[in-house]
Amino acid sequence: MTRREKEMLNSACQCSLVSRVVIFGGTHGNEMSGVALAKHWLKEPSELQRKTFVAEPCLANPLAVEKCVRYVDSDLNRCFSEEILRSPESESDPYEFIRARELYQKYGSGSCLYDFIFDLHNTTSHMGATLLRCSADDIMSLHLANYLQSSSGSQSMPCYNYLIDIPKKDNVYLQNIGKHSLCLELGPQPQGVTRADVLSRMRELVNCGLDFIDLFNQGKEFPSFETDIYRVLSRVDYPRDSDGEISAIVHSGLQDKDYVPLKPGHPIFTTMNGEDLLYDGETVVYPTFINEAAYYEKKVAFISTEKVHLKVPALKLETGAEHNGTLQ
Amino acid sequence: MTRREKEMLNSACQCSLVSRVVIFGGTHGNEMSGVALAKHWLKEPSELQRKTFVAEPCLANPLAVEKCVRYVDSDLNRCFSEEILRSPESESDPYEFIRARELYQKYGSGSCLYDFIFDLHNTTSHMGATLLRCSADDIMSLHLANYLQSSSGSQSMPCYNYLIDIPKKDNVYLQNIGKHSLCLELGPQPQGVTRADVLSRMRELVNCGLDFIDLFNQGKEFPSFETDIYRVLSRVDYPRDSDGEISAIVHSGLQDKDYVPLKPGHPIFTTMNGEDLLYDGETVVYPTFINEAAYYEKKVAFISTEKVHLKVPALKLETGAEHNGTLQ
Repeated sequence: MTRREKEMLNSACQCSLVSRVVIFGGTHGNEMSGVALAKHWLKEPSELQRKTFVAEPCLANPLAVEKCVRYVDSDLNRCFSEEILRSPESESDPYEFIRARELYQKYGSGSCLYDFIFDLHNTTSHMGATLLRCSADDIMSLHLANYLQSSSGSQSMPCYNYLIDIPKKDNVYLQNIGKHSLCLELGPQPQGVTRADVLSRMRELVNCGLDFIDLFNQGKEFPSFETDIYRVLSRVDYPRDSDGEISAIVHSGLQDKDYVPLKPGHPIFTTMNGEDLLYDGETVVYPTFINEAAYYEKKVAFISTEKVHLKVPALKLETGAEHNGTLQ
Repeated sequence: MTRREKEMLNSACQCSLVSRVVIFGGTHGNEMSGVALAKHWLKEPSELQRKTFVAEPCLANPLAVEKCVRYVDSDLNRCFSEEILRSPESESDPYEFIRARELYQKYGSGSCLYDFIFDLHNTTSHMGATLLRCSADDIMSLHLANYLQSSSGSQSMPCYNYLIDIPKKDNVYLQNIGKHSLCLELGPQPQGVTRADVLSRMRELVNCGLDFIDLFNQGKEFPSFETDIYRVLSRVDYPRDSDGEISAIVHSGLQDKDYVPLKPGHPIFTTMNGEDLLYDGETVVYPTFINEAAYYEKKVAFISTEKVHLKVPALKLETGAEHNGTLQ
């Protein structure tokens, strides 16, 4: 062991025992892998059980699931702001404001704070198995993601480490309410469709993630490692005409090229008259969520990311917190 | 020329001049190739013009397009029944009942009967470029489909001849209101997404179809030919539990296998517990619209078809009806 490795190990991140885990499906009601899995686990939860913690499934937006739409009144996965969670209830509240407060009460506040949240999503983009995190400081979820990348069997949908680096106070996503969290964003899959291959990959990743937590609770130390993550730089809108209408579509050369380096001068849009519009940035970026159906209304044609090399300290259970063999 | 060929030619189908053509996009508001093309052509219609007829684009369901949903109250492409079209208007009518009557008045009735209708659709299934017809008797649309199969350049999405063989009185589809008609059903494309490759293929097919009509009007005779078509046999629902909930998903071995022969004993569904359900029919069928997002609510997991070999008589303009060189 080199001196440097010793130093890394000495500075291992210590985390407390993970006692309670929740797995959300149907945060968006038409992203069907998570919907189907949550519904199944609600009937047959045994697959989620491990020795050292309790895991429960939850259908996050049941009304949207029933209607098979992303949301009913307002995107639930943008409703976990302090402002919405702390504002008093009102009769005119969108359905998802009410639901966000319910979920926060049950899983995210005070003595009910869950230790780990999985939030299951699909995308119409070619994002493979994207492991999405919203906090650069959450070392445990980085270790979990690394464990998924190195352990999970099928590589038909490769894993990518993805970071939306936002301060906790500005975080509006569901996964923000847990102590640690990871969003699984699998695609391509059309909205409203359950594909067996995508569902099977998602199920494998969740099970592998639960195995990781179980090992962690049992005192296994996870060594420091180095990895690449894709960190969000900016959201790129479609070209629009003077009325605000979309005036060009994603270029065929960019379509399905999520995580492929985009170089200055490469075509990114094409107009209906066949004119190509080029990427006029000065640096290589890694486009993601290219042509995602749900992002048209958000005015996002793709999300630019940069590839960042990270050195992640070792992870271990805090001293004296080994699981005593009975569920708490 | 053989004697047989002479006989075929002698019995050529004669059709009258095609004076008016309409191209519908957005019959379903989230099938984006047709939506984008119709919107473009409404602004810049010159691409649709030919010497011998007038062609106009129409956004069939503008409210559904605005909301980017399949329909608002009721599936427009099931609203062209005699019952709906002939019933008196009522304030409680679904939006699409009213819209169906408007379209029928403008394009399908009496002196306004349009000669040829194109109806542009997308599917989430791997249907390539499906040329869908609703009348076995419409020889002109069969010739047009044959022309598309043999003429259109890009073969990245191959053409398939598809027939829903229903008596005119039972036909509820938009294309029913024209004298001749063809529906272009291109996929895979997720709902709400405009893919450049799919849009480009659809545009090429429409232009090629308009070229065909122009040639026909100018008196070109199209010889008899033989072809295979896929004729609808039956709609197959998802397996369901005692509450009517879907209890199995499309098997990975069937997914994306539209138009691939399905043999007795092959797996078609898989349960969440990993049990495979097998096709228990006695003959080979050709499954289509496999795992189409919009058909979950219609209780259709896929549509079985049979492959039928057809001999199609020659087609020519009825005697004395050659286009006189000026638009009517």
